[in-house]
Amino acid sequence: MTLSIDKKPKIALQPIHQCVPVTFHYDVHFTQGLFKTNNPLLAEIMAADGKPGIKRAIAVIDSGVLRHHPHLLKQLQGYTERYQDFFTLADHPMIVVGGEEAKNTPILIDAIHTLINEVGLCRHSYILAIGGGAVLDMVGYAAATAHRGIRLIRIPTTVLAQNDSAIGVKNGVNAFGKKNFLGTFAPPYAVLNDFDFLSTLDARDWRSGVAEAIKVALIKDADFFEFISSYAQAIAARNLEIMKQVIYRCAQLHLQHIANSGDPFEKGSSRPLDFGHWAAHRLEHLTDYRLRHGEAVAIGIALDCTYSYLAGLLSQPDWQDILRTLSAIGFTLYVPELNLTGYKSGLFQGLSEFQEHLGGDLTITLLQGIGKARDVHQVDITLYQQAVNLLENWQQTINNH
Amino acid sequence: MTLSIDKKPKIALQPIHQCVPVTFHYDVHFTQGLFKTNNPLLAEIMAADGKPGIKRAIAVIDSGVLRHHPHLLKQLQGYTERYQDFFTLADHPMIVVGGEEAKNTPILIDAIHTLINEVGLCRHSYILAIGGGAVLDMVGYAAATAHRGIRLIRIPTTVLAQNDSAIGVKNGVNAFGKKNFLGTFAPPYAVLNDFDFLSTLDARDWRSGVAEAIKVALIKDADFFEFISSYAQAIAARNLEIMKQVIYRCAQLHLQHIANSGDPFEKGSSRPLDFGHWAAHRLEHLTDYRLRHGEAVAIGIALDCTYSYLAGLLSQPDWQDILRTLSAIGFTLYVPELNLTGYKSGLFQGLSEFQEHLGGDLTITLLQGIGKARDVHQVDITLYQQAVNLLENWQQTINNH
Repeated sequence: MTLSIDKKPKIALQPIHQCVPVTFHYDVHFTQGLFKTNNPLLAEIMAADGKPGIKRAIAVIDSGVLRHHPHLLKQLQGYTERYQDFFTLADHPMIVVGGEEAKNTPILIDAIHTLINEVGLCRHSYILAIGGGAVLDMVGYAAATAHRGIRLIRIPTTVLAQNDSAIGVKNGVNAFGKKNFLGTFAPPYAVLNDFDFLSTLDARDWRSGVAEAIKVALIKDADFFEFISSYAQAIAARNLEIMKQVIYRCAQLHLQHIANSGDPFEKGSSRPLDFGHWAAHRLEHLTDYRLRHGEAVAIGIALDCTYSYLAGLLSQPDWQDILRTLSAIGFTLYVPELNLTGYKSGLFQGLSEFQEHLGGDLTITLLQGIGKARDVHQVDITLYQQAVNLLENWQQTINNH
Repeated sequence: MTLSIDKKPKIALQPIHQCVPVTFHYDVHFTQGLFKTNNPLLAEIMAADGKPGIKRAIAVIDSGVLRHHPHLLKQLQGYTERYQDFFTLADHPMIVVGGEEAKNTPILIDAIHTLINEVGLCRHSYILAIGGGAVLDMVGYAAATAHRGIRLIRIPTTVLAQNDSAIGVKNGVNAFGKKNFLGTFAPPYAVLNDFDFLSTLDARDWRSGVAEAIKVALIKDADFFEFISSYAQAIAARNLEIMKQVIYRCAQLHLQHIANSGDPFEKGSSRPLDFGHWAAHRLEHLTDYRLRHGEAVAIGIALDCTYSYLAGLLSQPDWQDILRTLSAIGFTLYVPELNLTGYKSGLFQGLSEFQEHLGGDLTITLLQGIGKARDVHQVDITLYQQAVNLLENWQQTINNH
């Protein structure tokens, strides 16, 4: 048959509007003794995709975790043997440096990609990432970019990672001196929170993660803030039962926000979960990471709450209650770097870096009450400078007691 | 107030099921004279996000396009001046090598990231990627991983990119000798197809892109295959009006599939749009990219159609009709590399690489009629060898005429 051009009705070349709906699902589990042979959770999760056959996986482990859990490698081997009908490790676990250094070492991404290639992992294989938030962020970036995404099982070992950084939809590493300059949005396959890892955290890491719980309580849930405030001493005294509640509720609030915000991949400019974070990110950099993330977040929260108070949004008693709670848990609320003000070298450069990373207008989240966030698009640097002074005085008073 | 642990109801630490819905939107436009100052399309798209202010962008351009369109840089500059109230280029366009070499040069990713950092692009800035599919894949990967995703406007300049590779949700570069080993799923911000770029394509590139149109017609739309088949001579003779129809319908079918497949980010194993592609990817590698992607796809289609015929799925007349159409458009359907059979060095290694990239079971798409795809999970290598022999004979007959 032959069709002439004239006879064939011409298709009008209108723009085609494309709409691509994607729904991601994953479970966040809470357990203890994850690698004990009588705990089938991990093996079951890998086997539960409905496909026959023994699953293949590799493991990447934070060296800091191994230092405190020297038997972990042997335990993992025993676990793998016990559940060999479910999954197999395609190679020895890869051990990587822990902490922010993991995100500042680009060669680690290459090393993980090389391992994925060498053992021939496919998109339905698993990467088990065991460690603190920084290691999970780094491994997550490597996993998300190989074969356009290998299944990532996050096994966070710190409070901060269990209640915040490891349960969300992001990964990233640092580049050009900028935090998370490289990264993607890539939900994990599953998150397994094992509370046993918390027992060996040093005091600073135990405390650090509570900052994110206070943050999310302040912007979303006054009752939860009251709970944390009431148990501040117990938290400082390392009460694990209280900490479990803090982690669970914090994780729940973060997960609800991500699911219901309408913008989980952050195409807009609003980021209430980043309350206190513009200053925190900047302080981490200015202190050469002497401050841990949670410690910097505690200061960032204190700063933005104090600013909220000075701006007339937050009542004086609420403001005091927040600072008292942060101090009772053990956070230091002032560091000299807060008073660095030079162009390109000071604290307030953090505002423009924050804007650059998120894109669009500057959007800073403030408090207009405990449990009530409010976005603003411009801030008064003079007022922020006063807030810094108030924090300096506050910390001096604490230190003198 | 004080709460005792006992009085406070304990939260049961059940797993939290997280469900994250994300919807991506983008428009695919069809135009001519995109950079003529009387065509406001590009400027309007950048300005249409509802935010005030002049948008910032960088441009990355395929050197192959510049060779054929030496005035493009000047035209782009004139366009930028004309629409300076809408957007500004933050730096001179970056010129990059074209073709598969763009995906084999990791330093280009670093160079784009460096530029993004130096000019301080934010997530709401734009990257204009102008070029063939390989350049767009590479730039897309760089754009998707900076700040977790900068807005990417794809301006594809080849038939293949306009009707297939540049309109979808993927990006990628090659690593470890494997195609698209590194990449992400990341829908573009917009796609602007300018037909004027097609006029300078060499005969091979003009032809190549039609292979994907034939592919999608064969698995989805018998009428469209009939259209292509009827106009095979006109296509070979570079009739632009016919080509516009072929590109538009091919783009439409691809976009519909991505939107409605239920699995746009390919978490499963089924990939009907990759009909003919397991052999194509392998042949590109085995021929050191002497074959262009579309040329390899044409052979892959011919091979899988011939196998479908030998397996009793496809009728003899339909099979002949397909080979005749491919040959009439000018495709060569046999290369000696089809007869390489060594372990790790031959054609059939492509089957396991395909499985590794997609993950899970081997899933190969065959035809059970024109317009009707069918997935199978195992194949008969002996039958495939016969298919190779039939293609060799077919091509010999063509060559002798």
